[in-house]
Amino acid sequence: MKIFLIPCPIAENTSTEVLPPQILTALQQTTHFLVENVRTARRFISELKLGIQIESLTFEVLDKDTQSKTVTDFYKKHSSVEYIGVISEAGCPGVADPGALAVSIAQQQNIEVIPLVGPSSILLGLMGSGFSGQSFAFIGYLPIDKAARIRKIEQLDRDVAKWGQTQIFIETPYRNNALLEDLIAQCAPDSLICIACDVTAPSGFVQTKKASDWAKAQPDLHKKPCIFLLGK
Amino acid sequence: MKIFLIPCPIAENTSTEVLPPQILTALQQTTHFLVENVRTARRFISELKLGIQIESLTFEVLDKDTQSKTVTDFYKKHSSVEYIGVISEAGCPGVADPGALAVSIAQQQNIEVIPLVGPSSILLGLMGSGFSGQSFAFIGYLPIDKAARIRKIEQLDRDVAKWGQTQIFIETPYRNNALLEDLIAQCAPDSLICIACDVTAPSGFVQTKKASDWAKAQPDLHKKPCIFLLGK
Repeated sequence: MKIFLIPCPIAENTSTEVLPPQILTALQQTTHFLVENVRTARRFISELKLGIQIESLTFEVLDKDTQSKTVTDFYKKHSSVEYIGVISEAGCPGVADPGALAVSIAQQQNIEVIPLVGPSSILLGLMGSGFSGQSFAFIGYLPIDKAARIRKIEQLDRDVAKWGQTQIFIETPYRNNALLEDLIAQCAPDSLICIACDVTAPSGFVQTKKASDWAKAQPDLHKKPCIFLLGK
Repeated sequence: MKIFLIPCPIAENTSTEVLPPQILTALQQTTHFLVENVRTARRFISELKLGIQIESLTFEVLDKDTQSKTVTDFYKKHSSVEYIGVISEAGCPGVADPGALAVSIAQQQNIEVIPLVGPSSILLGLMGSGFSGQSFAFIGYLPIDKAARIRKIEQLDRDVAKWGQTQIFIETPYRNNALLEDLIAQCAPDSLICIACDVTAPSGFVQTKKASDWAKAQPDLHKKPCIFLLGK
């Protein structure tokens, strides 16, 4: 048994552009899947038009609430299966997305894991930012509490200026505009903020500007998938 | 003018498996390139057999010694060109590789940058480690000085245990075995170390084991491209 870690598109209708051939080959070999959302996973595989009989595939849910036992039982039950695929909702399984549990258990059981190449908004944002890629950190969500969030932004802004490590973070899409306002208000006017919005989509953009320049023309990021970066 | 950030393979003879169609489309549209190494870039494009006349392409070197002026002059001289491609030696431009300078100057000049999907050994290592992808840091090289390196490893090991942020780092390939020995010696016996070696190559592997288990059977990593991760 081997585990394919299968990335999927991060923007609609981009499968044929962003997925490398190795993903299509892996999907054609795989019959059993651990997926964040069964409906989405079925649609993803179906839309690729690989001639796969979706009804013949076996799916088990692997989301943030999944317990170790579910994965362990799945591996045990299907131990004679050649390949198991792990698919999360968008991008790369295990990177700001569920999937790490399936990999962690596979590693403990000496099951070979094969990560496949695919889109990651974090990596694409970093590439497009122009910030240092020699040292960077993805820190997930900033604190929700206003005071804690302001302290965190001030600390990140100082750390970037001092150490130069690029800081990457995300927000719940309906709070993107509020986060950008906080960043503009708390960072020094000359600090560079990069927004990677809807990357790989035709409407997407990756733009780096000074906080004071974002203040002059704040884009509407409401409900759009965004990555935020501070760096130099 | 727009800037394509063009990833290239990280293992030999894998172009046809790991590169998504959008890279081939971009290369067919691009005539001017900023590249880490002209010979390698020519060979990369040539091997894709896209029918591109390599002799008709314009290349300028963009490596770690390149000054801002070189890039600025290149953009100015070729301002009427539709697309400029940035290609580094392996993987994604700007991520543990030169390229950020070209992007940073493009961002300053409001030139659109378009990061394309491709292989990153850092991201593939993270996916395959089973460690947290909710919070992770790439820190580049550890200190060369023995005492400083030991202190750094001890600090990383403690930080991972305490905060859970996955720590990712690299070493000059001929010192990989020495680094693994240091990790085994300095980390707690139960600490998890992941080695992602030659990922995307048929001989590659991504394995996570306790320090004490690596000690029992240390793989030969000499001169092989590796990513090291500490996490939980």
